[in-house]
Amino acid sequence: MAQRLIVIGGDAAGMAAASQARRRRGRDDLEIVAFERGHFTSYSACGIPYWISGVVEERDALIARAPQTFRTEYDIDVRLRTEVTGIDLDRREVVARDLDRGGEVRERFDTLMYAAGAVPVRPAWADGDVAGVFGMQTLDDGAALRDWLDAEPRPGRAVVVGGGYIGVEMAESLVKRGLSVTLVEQAEQPMSTVDPDMAKLATDAMREVGIDIRTGVEVTGLDERDGRVSAVVTADGTLPADVVVLGLGVRPNAALAEAAGLPLGPTGGIRVDRRMRVAGVPDVWAAGDCVETLHLVSGLPVHVPLGTHANKQGRVAGINIGGGYATFPGVIGTAVTKVCDLEVGRTGLRERDAAASGFEFVSVVAESTNRAGYYPGARPMTIKLIAERPTGRLLGAQIVGRAEAAKRIDALAVALWNGMTVDEMTALDLGYAPPYAPVWDPVLIAARKAVDALAR
Amino acid sequence: MAQRLIVIGGDAAGMAAASQARRRRGRDDLEIVAFERGHFTSYSACGIPYWISGVVEERDALIARAPQTFRTEYDIDVRLRTEVTGIDLDRREVVARDLDRGGEVRERFDTLMYAAGAVPVRPAWADGDVAGVFGMQTLDDGAALRDWLDAEPRPGRAVVVGGGYIGVEMAESLVKRGLSVTLVEQAEQPMSTVDPDMAKLATDAMREVGIDIRTGVEVTGLDERDGRVSAVVTADGTLPADVVVLGLGVRPNAALAEAAGLPLGPTGGIRVDRRMRVAGVPDVWAAGDCVETLHLVSGLPVHVPLGTHANKQGRVAGINIGGGYATFPGVIGTAVTKVCDLEVGRTGLRERDAAASGFEFVSVVAESTNRAGYYPGARPMTIKLIAERPTGRLLGAQIVGRAEAAKRIDALAVALWNGMTVDEMTALDLGYAPPYAPVWDPVLIAARKAVDALAR
Repeated sequence: MAQRLIVIGGDAAGMAAASQARRRRGRDDLEIVAFERGHFTSYSACGIPYWISGVVEERDALIARAPQTFRTEYDIDVRLRTEVTGIDLDRREVVARDLDRGGEVRERFDTLMYAAGAVPVRPAWADGDVAGVFGMQTLDDGAALRDWLDAEPRPGRAVVVGGGYIGVEMAESLVKRGLSVTLVEQAEQPMSTVDPDMAKLATDAMREVGIDIRTGVEVTGLDERDGRVSAVVTADGTLPADVVVLGLGVRPNAALAEAAGLPLGPTGGIRVDRRMRVAGVPDVWAAGDCVETLHLVSGLPVHVPLGTHANKQGRVAGINIGGGYATFPGVIGTAVTKVCDLEVGRTGLRERDAAASGFEFVSVVAESTNRAGYYPGARPMTIKLIAERPTGRLLGAQIVGRAEAAKRIDALAVALWNGMTVDEMTALDLGYAPPYAPVWDPVLIAARKAVDALAR
Repeated sequence: MAQRLIVIGGDAAGMAAASQARRRRGRDDLEIVAFERGHFTSYSACGIPYWISGVVEERDALIARAPQTFRTEYDIDVRLRTEVTGIDLDRREVVARDLDRGGEVRERFDTLMYAAGAVPVRPAWADGDVAGVFGMQTLDDGAALRDWLDAEPRPGRAVVVGGGYIGVEMAESLVKRGLSVTLVEQAEQPMSTVDPDMAKLATDAMREVGIDIRTGVEVTGLDERDGRVSAVVTADGTLPADVVVLGLGVRPNAALAEAAGLPLGPTGGIRVDRRMRVAGVPDVWAAGDCVETLHLVSGLPVHVPLGTHANKQGRVAGINIGGGYATFPGVIGTAVTKVCDLEVGRTGLRERDAAASGFEFVSVVAESTNRAGYYPGARPMTIKLIAERPTGRLLGAQIVGRAEAAKRIDALAVALWNGMTVDEMTALDLGYAPPYAPVWDPVLIAARKAVDALAR
């Protein structure tokens, strides 16, 4: 009799795992059932802001593989709108509830893949029943927001609460749709994913496109009229709003796992080993936004909900479930984002992370251009490097530029991944031609500046 | 009394060395004299094709630092139009000739910096006095070509001989100026800097913009009329030409060095150690297009005339001359180029290099896009990886894409520089956001494909 793999969560991590397991084990060897509480499988959550803005026209463009594809091509029994509500590790069973028709089923498993993703942080003031308040995590969330924006009365004033990646991208998207947008950030600055000096460049760009940024402001509540949100209440006054988007980050969707006795780490994510096995629990695997992972620079566990990690981790889990060997070593915190007409990239530790991890370090900021200065289209690019003192080992890097900038973080990420020192980096053989770089590549200019700073 | 540094060659390597030496040693400690046979110092030779095409409008935009800047800000005695014709190592003297006014001077040195650059390969058939035939190495060469193109009778038909970087860039530039352009390549394909399968993509793009490419054709001579070139004669017939540009590569300008007894390596370049000291010759340094360097993958000496290496090597020499410590470890053959609307990048070994160096290897070609497939502006991108068998160590990489492609070679170059295996590369934490990459980065897709190929 075939063994049975049950997958909880039909997005990137879960379906990557299911597909990889299927490639290695045929249907007579492994039956695969995937439960997904939403309407979709394997879609690009990161693409949602661009669908909201209209930059991406069709919702279905975000869907990498439809449920039917998994059913027919991968022989995976995908059950949509079905939420797993309980895991019984002793009996090797899950309890799943049909969200549309009601009713529960119990399904046995030999192997369990937990990939329930993340849930948006929803502060107490957003917990009520007021219509027009949206978290932004799933494609269902995005669809609900689009319906709200398209329905009468048309919302004209948006308040985005929180200035992380999602908040910033959503603010820009709503401006593109013609709404007047206020971004409320509790800290001194949005874009705290980079250091304040670099975040300021991004903030300026957001103001240029008309986003009203309110910093150091705490939201305390909502006003409503006829069950619809009418304003966001803050310590500094009331901001009228026809729609509110929460960009306060997400947390691992691990309640079900915790209830079943799976171990959580200090970040609230599920603890897994390098093969994506849930630590100490035989035949149970986890991957994606619900797990915590190792930060290879700080050595600390971190929760980094990103589609690229979810896909990699799911693939690793699936290879292992399929009888192969693969590992996910951890992350170094690389991320890129488009902020209006700015490109922002980061990898490794920010100054505050480096300090919190106990590193001594220097940091330098180098100004350069994406192309040779004389070549048309040359635009400014700023690179910040953080290097351990006295070793010179690269600890972190940030880039802000106007064009062809964000993905340059990759070269820095690979240097950091390999433990290079900034001195070693000055010798790197990077691509040079006037349409693509000055003769001293911006990365090399920054590395030289860091070497000078270490010598002082 | 101050010591005396004489610099032969006032372009990137020579002036980088002179500037670095000056930063570390004041005028009372070190007198610096730089001889340059041309009219310019420190210009971007790589920018010349873009000035020819008109993409860069002003010649002086290519000049990073003018002679006067070196004289006043760096206290360097720059002597233009002055060619060093002899080096007497025993007497520690050079002989220099004033090219405009005639006459020779002898100048003593304590330290000699040889940075005479490269000279275009000029086949015997191009050795005569026919006007309208141009090598393309110095800004003076570029200025002469521009004068020819602007003078009456206006040239309408160009033949470019040789399809390396300069040949390809010049062909495109001449098309942009409205000439009809034929590119003659002796080999089966131009763009042999990448493997034939990747070069084909570039060749197709060149044909699309109207460049007439003749491959497998050997040039045997020139026809002339009234002292002006009128045609290029080949084994396959005669190609009418009002202007001929040589793109047959360059060789180290080392005749003077050789005559003085400086050691040359198998590439014809001057042999230097890692600090850019001429091997075995006290107080004599060399850098730039006249030296050979170590290829860090093949372990063989190579001649790679590129401004980026010249600048780095010159800087290293200057730091050492100045009493500091710096090394230039070698190169891995990274290069990027714009070929019409294609972007081409390469690093490490091509298939033929890997075979010639005795490696066993696999190679894979992976198709992907620069952005998430659903994001506007997504364009195809092709990545080729060459990996050692059985270790999986990356040996080389090539990219051809339509947008935001070329500089992605840097991440691969840093991976290669650090000796990563393609298996290790599948875990790399690279930047992901829909405007900048699919969720599986093209580099990761290619690495996975290489892992699969190694397993077969």
